[in-house]
Amino acid sequence: MNTRERYLSVRQYSLDLCKNLIKEDFGLQASEEVSPPKWHLAHTTWFFEQFILINYMDDYKVAHPQFNFLFNSYYNTHGNRTARNQRGLMSRPGVDEVLEYRKYVDEAMLRLIEQGNEEVEKLVILGTHHEQQHQELLITDLKFSIWHNPLDVQVMDVHEYPTEKENGWVEMSEGLYQIGHRGDGFCFDNELGPHKVFLQPFSIGKNLVSNEEYLAFVESDGYQNPKYWHDEGWAWVKRDKIDAPLYWEKRDGKWTYYTLNGREEIDPKSPVAHVSFYEASAYAMWKGLRLPTEFEWEASNERFKWGSRWEWTNSAYLAYPGFKIAPGALGEYNGKFMVNQMVLRGASIATSPNHSRATYRNFFHPHLRWQFMGIRLAK
Amino acid sequence: MNTRERYLSVRQYSLDLCKNLIKEDFGLQASEEVSPPKWHLAHTTWFFEQFILINYMDDYKVAHPQFNFLFNSYYNTHGNRTARNQRGLMSRPGVDEVLEYRKYVDEAMLRLIEQGNEEVEKLVILGTHHEQQHQELLITDLKFSIWHNPLDVQVMDVHEYPTEKENGWVEMSEGLYQIGHRGDGFCFDNELGPHKVFLQPFSIGKNLVSNEEYLAFVESDGYQNPKYWHDEGWAWVKRDKIDAPLYWEKRDGKWTYYTLNGREEIDPKSPVAHVSFYEASAYAMWKGLRLPTEFEWEASNERFKWGSRWEWTNSAYLAYPGFKIAPGALGEYNGKFMVNQMVLRGASIATSPNHSRATYRNFFHPHLRWQFMGIRLAK
Amino acid sequence: MNTRERYLSVRQYSLDLCKNLIKEDFGLQASEEVSPPKWHLAHTTWFFEQFILINYMDDYKVAHPQFNFLFNSYYNTHGNRTARNQRGLMSRPGVDEVLEYRKYVDEAMLRLIEQGNEEVEKLVILGTHHEQQHQELLITDLKFSIWHNPLDVQVMDVHEYPTEKENGWVEMSEGLYQIGHRGDGFCFDNELGPHKVFLQPFSIGKNLVSNEEYLAFVESDGYQNPKYWHDEGWAWVKRDKIDAPLYWEKRDGKWTYYTLNGREEIDPKSPVAHVSFYEASAYAMWKGLRLPTEFEWEASNERFKWGSRWEWTNSAYLAYPGFKIAPGALGEYNGKFMVNQMVLRGASIATSPNHSRATYRNFFHPHLRWQFMGIRLAK
Amino acid sequence: MNTRERYLSVRQYSLDLCKNLIKEDFGLQASEEVSPPKWHLAHTTWFFEQFILINYMDDYKVAHPQFNFLFNSYYNTHGNRTARNQRGLMSRPGVDEVLEYRKYVDEAMLRLIEQGNEEVEKLVILGTHHEQQHQELLITDLKFSIWHNPLDVQVMDVHEYPTEKENGWVEMSEGLYQIGHRGDGFCFDNELGPHKVFLQPFSIGKNLVSNEEYLAFVESDGYQNPKYWHDEGWAWVKRDKIDAPLYWEKRDGKWTYYTLNGREEIDPKSPVAHVSFYEASAYAMWKGLRLPTEFEWEASNERFKWGSRWEWTNSAYLAYPGFKIAPGALGEYNGKFMVNQMVLRGASIATSPNHSRATYRNFFHPHLRWQFMGIRLAK
Repeated sequence: MNTRERYLSVRQYSLDLCKNLIKEDFGLQASEEVSPPKWHLAHTTWFFEQFILINYMDDYKVAHPQFNFLFNSYYNTHGNRTARNQRGLMSRPGVDEVLEYRKYVDEAMLRLIEQGNEEVEKLVILGTHHEQQHQELLITDLKFSIWHNPLDVQVMDVHEYPTEKENGWVEMSEGLYQIGHRGDGFCFDNELGPHKVFLQPFSIGKNLVSNEEYLAFVESDGYQNPKYWHDEGWAWVKRDKIDAPLYWEKRDGKWTYYTLNGREEIDPKSPVAHVSFYEASAYAMWKGLRLPTEFEWEASNERFKWGSRWEWTNSAYLAYPGFKIAPGALGEYNGKFMVNQMVLRGASIATSPNHSRATYRNFFHPHLRWQFMGIRLAK
Repeated sequence: MNTRERYLSVRQYSLDLCKNLIKEDFGLQASEEVSPPKWHLAHTTWFFEQFILINYMDDYKVAHPQFNFLFNSYYNTHGNRTARNQRGLMSRPGVDEVLEYRKYVDEAMLRLIEQGNEEVEKLVILGTHHEQQHQELLITDLKFSIWHNPLDVQVMDVHEYPTEKENGWVEMSEGLYQIGHRGDGFCFDNELGPHKVFLQPFSIGKNLVSNEEYLAFVESDGYQNPKYWHDEGWAWVKRDKIDAPLYWEKRDGKWTYYTLNGREEIDPKSPVAHVSFYEASAYAMWKGLRLPTEFEWEASNERFKWGSRWEWTNSAYLAYPGFKIAPGALGEYNGKFMVNQMVLRGASIATSPNHSRATYRNFFHPHLRWQFMGIRLAK
Repeated sequence: MNTRERYLSVRQYSLDLCKNLIKEDFGLQASEEVSPPKWHLAHTTWFFEQFILINYMDDYKVAHPQFNFLFNSYYNTHGNRTARNQRGLMSRPGVDEVLEYRKYVDEAMLRLIEQGNEEVEKLVILGTHHEQQHQELLITDLKFSIWHNPLDVQVMDVHEYPTEKENGWVEMSEGLYQIGHRGDGFCFDNELGPHKVFLQPFSIGKNLVSNEEYLAFVESDGYQNPKYWHDEGWAWVKRDKIDAPLYWEKRDGKWTYYTLNGREEIDPKSPVAHVSFYEASAYAMWKGLRLPTEFEWEASNERFKWGSRWEWTNSAYLAYPGFKIAPGALGEYNGKFMVNQMVLRGASIATSPNHSRATYRNFFHPHLRWQFMGIRLAK
Repeated sequence: MNTRERYLSVRQYSLDLCKNLIKEDFGLQASEEVSPPKWHLAHTTWFFEQFILINYMDDYKVAHPQFNFLFNSYYNTHGNRTARNQRGLMSRPGVDEVLEYRKYVDEAMLRLIEQGNEEVEKLVILGTHHEQQHQELLITDLKFSIWHNPLDVQVMDVHEYPTEKENGWVEMSEGLYQIGHRGDGFCFDNELGPHKVFLQPFSIGKNLVSNEEYLAFVESDGYQNPKYWHDEGWAWVKRDKIDAPLYWEKRDGKWTYYTLNGREEIDPKSPVAHVSFYEASAYAMWKGLRLPTEFEWEASNERFKWGSRWEWTNSAYLAYPGFKIAPGALGEYNGKFMVNQMVLRGASIATSPNHSRATYRNFFHPHLRWQFMGIRLAK
């Protein structure tokens, strides 16, 4: 797929995701962590305008003087950002206007891509990966927001609960392993600084923890016993009255979960989703096992199947040796978040096609669980 | 105007108010105190369905089994209410569906009204007054929500800033005055218990405080000097960094305010709006004057013009002697709020036609100011 | 009792109250609303120094340059106040130093009182009433703070639970009644502006509501039923998980309460104490009755016994007609609090001797209940 | 030093630290993170009673039936804990009673130690190290609490600001390094699991960052520029209005800091103290350098002087490979905290004698700074 094709297919995929939405859905924002679908559509577009068109296209005229203000995110070097928790209040520009904005930018981008500038190509690739990240967020954010509607709305055609087949353990021996991204393909800055890590011998599960396995933890009072939990995890359980994964609810004596296709009964064999790091750790502790580190995961990943759940590791999100912050606004990208977050490896059923890598480092705060997060055990 | 005509004209007026909105505007809710336009349209409809159609129309079939849950408000006796601060998250039912709901209920209501049941007529009148209250809220809530949009959106054709003409004081003598609603016309329960109140001699201003008068307070550091303020008013000023009425903003050295027609320069002669009770009191203190009580206001109201601003009084919202809570759900209406709120008298430019009375008791918490609240002085 | 005697006896009484305390008790502050015993001892002393000695005694030398800063309270015109919620952090000056401070000021005051200046005498009387207010707070604040200690400490010899004897109702007829303080005796500014109030006919209970009467409300699920409660009262019940008066606790199936003499079983016949306005109102609603207004209370008070509990009225704390704020710092005294608080009338078993009047207006926020607050009904 | 001598000297040292305190100081608790001196004295004593005397001494009678409840800390398996933020409210037992408690337990402990049980000896050693940890906290907690007193109290004789002498960098080459505690000496569980770590070549500073170096960062608007800060660090700076290290204050144009000996002018050559991880990271970023990892620190520690400041590393506090949670209550000790905290290495001027090790892993949340925390740079 050349750059133009990649650009077109990624841009189209964002629109495809929204095909069942009504205009009223596009503005939903149920918490500070999530953004409305319309904002994702506009922000990913703004990225191309701001970092590419303005710098590389002669006489480019921005679509609207205030869109930079409305649609940037954490890029502090680009002026004041609109308060994150008020994105749901932007009824204007409306959906139609945002779709116009996408068209306007796409036309300019396609003309620019044809000029074949290498620097631009690199940024276009970056921009499409950025949009793919937002595609996954668009799905998970919308799921979270619309879940608040008591009507259990069906809103997307995502098959959330595949069934895992494998069993048993992968055995890995002690030694030096190569970690981090190498080669010419695209990666984010936080995967760079390829380096060696010495690992002790370890075993890692071939399968993800299933719903029925996790249910056994729930039903043996795992959420009522502090001894399995981190001190802060336990405080979170008590304060937020947590007693099951996000979206789980017992109705008429049966455990159900809310999916983008509406509410369903728990599928016992499919991998558990929407657990926090605290829950993943507590489950491992209850089993007398542990979570793998991100290095163990990367070293062994070719020996098991992954891709349906983001997998919590017991590694904090920190810089690799030699990590450098890129100059300029794009440099703000990843380093700012390297504290208080845990690394997840793999990908999920909401990850866009052609957006996964074994070196990919996803990261979230340990209490968050609105992504499709699951559990792989190690020992 | 007979009942049927009143019903039709009130119901139509709600729709008229929304004529410039796009669908994305209908879900806006910028704080717990305000509700989205769509919710107002649905809740006022639910009132007719719940309190009239279900009880008085044979074989009435509710429009949707969960609308009772979604669209009731503080009527606790009608089951769980949806959390107030999450009304903005109800993208479904969409605007079209809510308009269908209105039509469905209107058709049934019109059939029922034709039957000429007297009890029903009374409830219809109550329901239209209830809807008129929500019409004013629809305007002020939407103004508050959409004000958060940095684009200074023009969204309604409301002429907010009339010019006051009169000057001077009305002098009133000591004596017993009759307070409360008498006669056959409609009133809310909190106006009942007509009774005598003994008043000392007092004077009350013929005019409302104007923008330029209030500006003098702002510019003489009224917001920086605790001596004019209630202790809790001062805490509010410091905590919320208040330094002018809501919607005021100094731009390029000039004071502007946001109106439903967009942002404008301050009109010096028109009455100040969007001040809290704390601000109204502090202004009066700064002038060496005071706010009237609600009894003084009612006793003298025929001797001045009112109707462009809700006027803060120095009366707490409490029961009149002999106030009775009506039995059943409608009885929850007013008594529950008789603590920590101050009475406002009069009406505002956002009050619906045929919805004002000299005995009307409006009430809000002393820090709130998103209604069109103004100041009349007394001494 | 002449001024000197009154001064001496009031000053001594403050010390008497503390006779069972150990030094560690003197610094306790369990919430922002309460102050440590040491602070009360120092603040009441500072009042005499600041408002009398500095102004009226030649060559008076303040005891310590920073005590003005440490021990003033809400008198904003006297410079920055120490944050209210950090009074418990002032371990220095220690108890011994504060007692020295009291002696130092007392000696100066006694010399000054002998000079017989009339203006000074008035201020001394005010200062002793101010100290008496703080004596009641010293008792109730300490009770609240030390209640947090799981050891159920016995700390004071206060007989909290007298038994009420009378029964039945006082009947009052419609008419104009004289309200407010008249005559030469001492009163606070908020009792002034004697004026006439027109009252409808009413009945008021001869007795206060007893523990066993209140218990019937508790045990008939009064705290589980929103229909008895103000909307904000109900929110308070739910948020703070309120299910009985403050200090009540069910132990081994029996209701007990914490008193300054330690924990005891409920005495059924003594008047209920430590209820909020919300609870008092809900109880009245449950009985199908109501609370009296402060005017009804004052008009009828000679016909029943009062003095063991502060009695919640259904009157908001507002200015009397003609209320004037006194010039200067002392003028900040009362007007600043005339919003969001309810009036209590009477006195309590913790009120100092010679400190009660039928015109006395006590006031607290409706959710507070750490004073000895009780309930008298009206209809 | 044999076990008995170690026990006696550690126990005495706790008392020595308090020799300048008045009884009122012993209860101070200015935030949830800190505990009062009295609590530290009692809690360390409770440790010996709970984990040794009750289990190993025949017929031991606990000093008081509720002290277990009052003085345990996070050891959840030992029953309900008193709310952490209410330790300052425990005026009873008083200081005298707590000193009696210490004597009572010491006498029993000395009799038990003489019996020469090996298991007991191990626990005694653990208990003394536990008490030494609390000695450092006693100093830093008291400093934090008493700093709130506007009188700038002098309360301890601690020489806080030594002068550093060395300069330049230690150069370390790539390779496998041995990490973690080996040998027979005492260590905490989190130092165990000795293992190899592969390090890239790195340089580490011989000296700690000094006050004057840090001041250059302050004065070049380091606290006003988001580009040096983690996203959460920046949020912390804005929310808490941070603009200098804890205890720094500009007075009359000069930077001063509060020490346990009172307020002093900044000493330019001594190492900066009381900075958070966010500040340490931002400083490093501003210098174009970075913080070392805990592995780099341990691998190189013999080549520089350390001990006056706890040194922030860029390592999250996580389990070493093979880390095992000890069975029983003592096992709760360290694993529960292995999330959201950063490792500090070294020791500080407040660390007790004979309590430092090169393998010691201290840890705190990244925003905390009331310990004597400083900065060593790496590249």
